[in-house]
Amino acid sequence: MALKIHGSLATPATLRVIVCLEEKGLKYELVPVNLQAGEHKKEPFLRLNPFGQVPAFEDGDLKLFESRAITQYIAHMYANCGSKLIPLDNKTMDTMSLWMEVEANHFNEAGSKLNHELAIKPMRGMVTDKAAVTEHEEALAKVLDVYEERLKVSKFLAGNSFTLVDLHHTPLIYHLMRTKVKVLFEARSNVAAWVINLLTRPAWRKVRYLIIKQNNVSAS
Amino acid sequence: MALKIHGSLATPATLRVIVCLEEKGLKYELVPVNLQAGEHKKEPFLRLNPFGQVPAFEDGDLKLFESRAITQYIAHMYANCGSKLIPLDNKTMDTMSLWMEVEANHFNEAGSKLNHELAIKPMRGMVTDKAAVTEHEEALAKVLDVYEERLKVSKFLAGNSFTLVDLHHTPLIYHLMRTKVKVLFEARSNVAAWVINLLTRPAWRKVRYLIIKQNNVSAS
Repeated sequence: MALKIHGSLATPATLRVIVCLEEKGLKYELVPVNLQAGEHKKEPFLRLNPFGQVPAFEDGDLKLFESRAITQYIAHMYANCGSKLIPLDNKTMDTMSLWMEVEANHFNEAGSKLNHELAIKPMRGMVTDKAAVTEHEEALAKVLDVYEERLKVSKFLAGNSFTLVDLHHTPLIYHLMRTKVKVLFEARSNVAAWVINLLTRPAWRKVRYLIIKQNNVSAS
Repeated sequence: MALKIHGSLATPATLRVIVCLEEKGLKYELVPVNLQAGEHKKEPFLRLNPFGQVPAFEDGDLKLFESRAITQYIAHMYANCGSKLIPLDNKTMDTMSLWMEVEANHFNEAGSKLNHELAIKPMRGMVTDKAAVTEHEEALAKVLDVYEERLKVSKFLAGNSFTLVDLHHTPLIYHLMRTKVKVLFEARSNVAAWVINLLTRPAWRKVRYLIIKQNNVSAS
């Protein structure tokens, strides 16, 4: 099998690449990286990503890291497979680029910190920092206010079709919808409808099944 | 004049777009946004960027924000003007995408915090947080270790030609080279040679002249 993703189903960044592969209907091998054992900070993983973060990706001889660089590669290289993730017209492409930056610099910034405080820390028996939660909840609410306005104009962020920028949001939204900040998404009608569209896509349902299956194995 | 950039020469993000316009040899109008007066947090600026951050950009009817989305737009839309900033072959393009993510998620993360502590705070009469400086110096050193290895293989980050990913680094490097973390760049021979290549480009010299001219006006 040519496509290999090295990572963990426990991280939104790994899931971002997996859901992209599923949208494209591509066959791939998930090579598990044991984060608890620190495998990502040691050789041989560091040869795939010198920053010691999952995921890393191989397509034959090509090696990549950084989840959003990997998804862009897949979307362009396999443009003719499965879902179209890249707009065909330049204007929609420019709009997608803009919202991809917003996802990385605003949505992910607040959302991943909330996921850390509200999901990861409790799971590891660590104490949630309530002041940090308040701060990042406020930041996320502001981001979602902007999204609400944007999603009045179009069904998805770049236009009326699902693209890579929507996909980039899905894993973290899935995790956040299982915490108390779910209400921030549900209180905004356009955002709420968009979230349902993201989480009910067949590709995401497959990824969700993988996550649940893995959690059941870990728990048993 | 069709191209307008709304921003401030005091921010690396605004300079990132200006140096891109200079590399392309395009005519543009810089519409100054007074950050000290909080103009970026008020109307009419918020209509250009609801997140209230500079720069914002207009090309006729097209409006964009997020500096790296703007530079990508300029590089693609004006591909045939001035410096080639986008690689022509797919493999170099994939490599550029990867290092663009590294710049945004690793280099900029550490570098902008150091710039804030070591340049902006002293300028505003605020006290530098020494613990934060130590933490981010360590992070920047690790990033530059990875760059040193990469730049052994090629003169620039995506390959042997200057591209958008190198350009994205220039403004922050210019500011950091005026602080004590300059030694982190100078201690790594390949990084040091790359920095000289970036800062001696004619387009950056023009931008540097604009910064110095503006600083002289502010000081007089």
